[in-house]
Parts: sequence; C-alpha cells; structure tokens
Amino acid sequence: MRTLWKLDQPLLLASTSVTRLHLLRSASIPVETKSPDVDERAIEASLQHRNMTPDVVALELASAKGAQVSSQMPDRLIVAADQTLALGAEQFHKPDDADQARAQLQKLSGRTHALHSAVVCYRNGQRLFAHVESAHLTMRKLGPAFMDAYLAAAGDAVTKSVGGYQLEGLGVHLFERVEGDHSTILGLPLLPLLAYLRNAGAVEA
Amino acid sequence: MRTLWKLDQPLLLASTSVTRLHLLRSASIPVETKSPDVDERAIEASLQHRNMTPDVVALELASAKGAQVSSQMPDRLIVAADQTLALGAEQFHKPDDADQARAQLQKLSGRTHALHSAVVCYRNGQRLFAHVESAHLTMRKLGPAFMDAYLAAAGDAVTKSVGGYQLEGLGVHLFERVEGDHSTILGLPLLPLLAYLRNAGAVEA
Repeated sequence: MRTLWKLDQPLLLASTSVTRLHLLRSASIPVETKSPDVDERAIEASLQHRNMTPDVVALELASAKGAQVSSQMPDRLIVAADQTLALGAEQFHKPDDADQARAQLQKLSGRTHALHSAVVCYRNGQRLFAHVESAHLTMRKLGPAFMDAYLAAAGDAVTKSVGGYQLEGLGVHLFERVEGDHSTILGLPLLPLLAYLRNAGAVEA
Repeated sequence: MRTLWKLDQPLLLASTSVTRLHLLRSASIPVETKSPDVDERAIEASLQHRNMTPDVVALELASAKGAQVSSQMPDRLIVAADQTLALGAEQFHKPDDADQARAQLQKLSGRTHALHSAVVCYRNGQRLFAHVESAHLTMRKLGPAFMDAYLAAAGDAVTKSVGGYQLEGLGVHLFERVEGDHSTILGLPLLPLLAYLRNAGAVEA
C-alpha cells in the first residue's frame, strides 16, 4: 500500500505503549518501537520536588525518554510521549491494585480532572519538537454498587493506566462529559505531531 | 467476564456499521446487529425537499431505521444511528468513486464542516430516546500533490464514509483542528446513549 510517509526509515517510538503504537499505525505511519531506559518515577519525584506543574512533568518525562533513545540511535527520527493526570494540584499515578484504583476513582467521582499529554521528537540527541495538549474529563458521581460492578468488570485493566480507566474501553461508563482531542486523551496528541512531521518533510504535506 | 449490562438480551443495533458495533463492544455492551430495511436515499430526498436541516435529517434517518427494525422485533431494545455531513447549507454524501471523493475534499479543503450524529432507542415500536450531537472539523488546505498521495494511499476507503475520510485512520492527515466528541465523529454519540441506558435500567448506574 502507498503511504504518506516519506522517510526511508520508520519512525522510532520511544515507548512500549500499545495504544500509542496503534494511534500511529492507524494513521499509516510506519513505526518501530524501542523501550526507553529511564527511571520515570525518579525523574517525576525530582520534578515534583521542584514544584513543576503536571503539564511540565509530562513534557520533561517525554523528553527524558526521547533523549535516552536518541543517544542510542542518533540517526533515527524519534517520537516520545508522556501523560499526567491531575485533579486540581494533585497528580495521580497508575494504581498498584484494585483497592488503590477504587480510592482514586472515589476522589475523581463527580469532579473534572485534566489529562496532560506531551509529545516530543528527537534526532541526533536534539529535541526538534515539543508540544503539550490537555483534555478535561468530568466523572459522574459513582455510587458503591456501580464501583463494585466496574472494578469487577474491568479487572486488571484498572492498573494499566493512570486514573484507573481506559476511555476507549469500559472506562467510558465513568464519564458524563469529555472535552479534548481523542488522541490527547489516549496519550499522544496526533494532530500537532503530524503538523510537525509535515513541516519536517517526513510526511506528505 | 462480568459486564455492566443488566438485560437478559443483548442490545440490538439496527445497523451494519462495523464502527458503531465496535464502539458499543469496546464499552463491553453485548450487541447483536440487524440490517434495517429502509431506503435511506429516498427518505433523505424527501426530507431535503421539505428543507429539513442536516441535524434533523440525521435524526429522522436514525428513527426510520430504529422503527423499521422495532416493527420486526418489538420485544427487543433497539439502537439506531445516522450521521450527516454539512458544509454550510450543503449536505454531503458518500462519494461513489475516487473522482467524487477528490471533488468533495476540494470543497472541504481549508474550511470547517459539521458532522451531525443522531442516536435513537426503540422498543415496541416506540421511540424512547433521541439525541443529536454535532462535531466541527477543520480541514487543512490540501494541495494537489497531497491529494494524489492521499487518494492513492486511501484507496477504496474513500467511498466508505461520507466526506471521503476516516478520522480514525488515514483521514487524520487531512485535518488541522477537530472539535467534538470522538464517538460523535465516528457516528454514534456514546455518552448520551449510555446515560439513557443507565436511566432505563439497561446498564449499571
């Protein structure tokens, strides 16, 4: 099949996220993946210690991943991304188990939280592009019967993403209102990334 | 797997749209499909003759499909949907071939169009729920080289949806701005439907 991709080599995604890989592949972008060797929790703790806001935390984490993979494969065009979830000033993390997921969902219940998604591109160790986009999601007031049913139906999936939900799956039942771009919610703002890739001559403009 | 679905019988989708089926299945809603036996183009021509706006056209088409399937299977809870695309006052239709798709895309290029998605529920021939939601999409200015590459890469897919694009696929390359709920853009406003299904006792609330 002909594609709109103009480079000889595929894009290199510095991530093992299946969702991000799927977003790029859906847009017919040839992609390879490489897991970045960075200690995300350590970087995050340091950034929060310096009172960075959650959108900046997402950008710094994405940059750390992109830079690390670029140092190993300098000739490749690399994309990296990260997403943070914040309710007011409080930043959330992937829950370790169903109990933590329940506690998080109880905090999010009936309120509006933000998802901040950062995407960066690197080549030769240089950051060539950086963008953060935010979405705002309003959760319904979740009663205990619904919470039990949701956690039982979702199973292990609640530990797979920050917030304990996947909007593209069972998580849609949690929400009364969703504002923001779909790819931003999934963790990789696709429209700004494509705009950069066109400008860089990697995608047909 | 446990689900949030509370009825003995699956939801009956009055549509053969794979995208709509996938949206419902992603939310873990058990679904069967039945193709409605209605002449959509004839209904649409009649509605346009009466100067109905594109959002009302979508609602009437969804209702015609829901009513027809409900007349055949009155005991089942039925969901039907329809989507129209309008640029200003002009309503678009699925292109018949690549040439028509190109002509449509040239009209949409550099401008903002609306997608109106209607969803209805029927039981015993009665319409129990109806909702129309709109999204607004702004296309980039598409040059001839891009248009050639896009049409070659998209192939037959351009005739599969009104507007000649699939936003969840290669079509994302066409856009500079997308405003509206993702499921509305895909043709089935999921959040209002789920709210109705909770109120109706079909989904865990």
